[in-house]
Amino acid sequence: MNTSYQYPRPALTVDCVVFGIGASDAATRKLQVLLIQRDLPPFKNAWALPGGFVRINESLDQAAARELREETGLSKVYLEQFHTFGDPQRDPREHVVSVAHFALVNLFDHKVLAATDARDADWFDADQTPKLAFDHQLILTSAWQRLQQAVRQRPIGFELLPREFTLTQLQQLYEVILNQSLDKRNFRKKLLAMELLIDTQRKQTGVAHRAAKLYRFDRTKYQRLQKAGFHFEL
Amino acid sequence: MNTSYQYPRPALTVDCVVFGIGASDAATRKLQVLLIQRDLPPFKNAWALPGGFVRINESLDQAAARELREETGLSKVYLEQFHTFGDPQRDPREHVVSVAHFALVNLFDHKVLAATDARDADWFDADQTPKLAFDHQLILTSAWQRLQQAVRQRPIGFELLPREFTLTQLQQLYEVILNQSLDKRNFRKKLLAMELLIDTQRKQTGVAHRAAKLYRFDRTKYQRLQKAGFHFEL
Repeated sequence: MNTSYQYPRPALTVDCVVFGIGASDAATRKLQVLLIQRDLPPFKNAWALPGGFVRINESLDQAAARELREETGLSKVYLEQFHTFGDPQRDPREHVVSVAHFALVNLFDHKVLAATDARDADWFDADQTPKLAFDHQLILTSAWQRLQQAVRQRPIGFELLPREFTLTQLQQLYEVILNQSLDKRNFRKKLLAMELLIDTQRKQTGVAHRAAKLYRFDRTKYQRLQKAGFHFEL
Repeated sequence: MNTSYQYPRPALTVDCVVFGIGASDAATRKLQVLLIQRDLPPFKNAWALPGGFVRINESLDQAAARELREETGLSKVYLEQFHTFGDPQRDPREHVVSVAHFALVNLFDHKVLAATDARDADWFDADQTPKLAFDHQLILTSAWQRLQQAVRQRPIGFELLPREFTLTQLQQLYEVILNQSLDKRNFRKKLLAMELLIDTQRKQTGVAHRAAKLYRFDRTKYQRLQKAGFHFEL
């Protein structure tokens, strides 16, 4: 191999912070995070983020998708790189640099749960995880902060809702991610002012209480506005 | 060495996109970028971003600061990591993964120019660089986009102005970074609405035309608001 640099080099890994939304009980809903239990040292038996070593001639995105599939069974998940962690002390074995990614999955989709059933993988409340291996608590906290920025600036939250949703469902989604209550009137005012929701002229069915209007996200209009320099801001 | 992974591993580098602002001629001012001319293959004699290999037991921030100092003489520059580039084809020698950083420097500060004088380093209009080595054009474009996001969401632009500045100077700074003209009335309205500028009650001196009011940025108030969940948005 025609190597460019013959000196010792740090090892390179990817880690995946997979966030899930969609607990069945709305009163206790929390942002979820997917963890795996390590079966080898260091940190044997500790919970950790799914991840592993980057192979030669594999892109970072490919490595993240492969590790997530191998360790949790999840595939076709949208992964977004957000930060690279390189503190020389972060791994007790040697200097390991990790490129961290985050992802969002909808837990209403039962396939997600089934895929992770067979392995030592499980969902935890993101703000109440067990003690994590390596610097994974720092990576988790950073990922959550980045996700909070992202949902304010880009309509990525809509990925987690059914195609048609109520404004209450949308607000709950934002409240779970932002981990705070939002003022209903302000939220609706800002949201509707962006004119990116299409009123389907239909209402929820099968609900015991008063049925709410159903909306869908106007992706085509958003893409057009985005090209013209529009900034999504909530 | 107790290595954690015995297989071949990608090489790891850092690259620095250093943006400069402060051309003397306001009519032709453009965002500047600092490049170095390579003296070794591959891409011998081509212009490139300053950067190089990460050493064992060196953090990514340390590596970026060291390479910038070694290759351009610049030190004490605020560097911010923004993305890691890992396409296996991006370096013709082998698989090299690069952690990219961006920085902002004020070119009114003559020390910056002097430091870079002695080396094969020079400033270029950021939108009219020569053909760059590796994937450095992609890294430069990504860095500029990230900088444009950053100045809309955080008051980092103020780092590039004298302590006291006019609203015209501030608008020109944003126009250079955003690479577009801004409506004067809208810009001032949004800016003043944030109540983060302190009117010094003084005016410019030594100007031929009508002297403008001088302002300074209220950093203390910004930090207080930020803790309370305030979002800077321009």
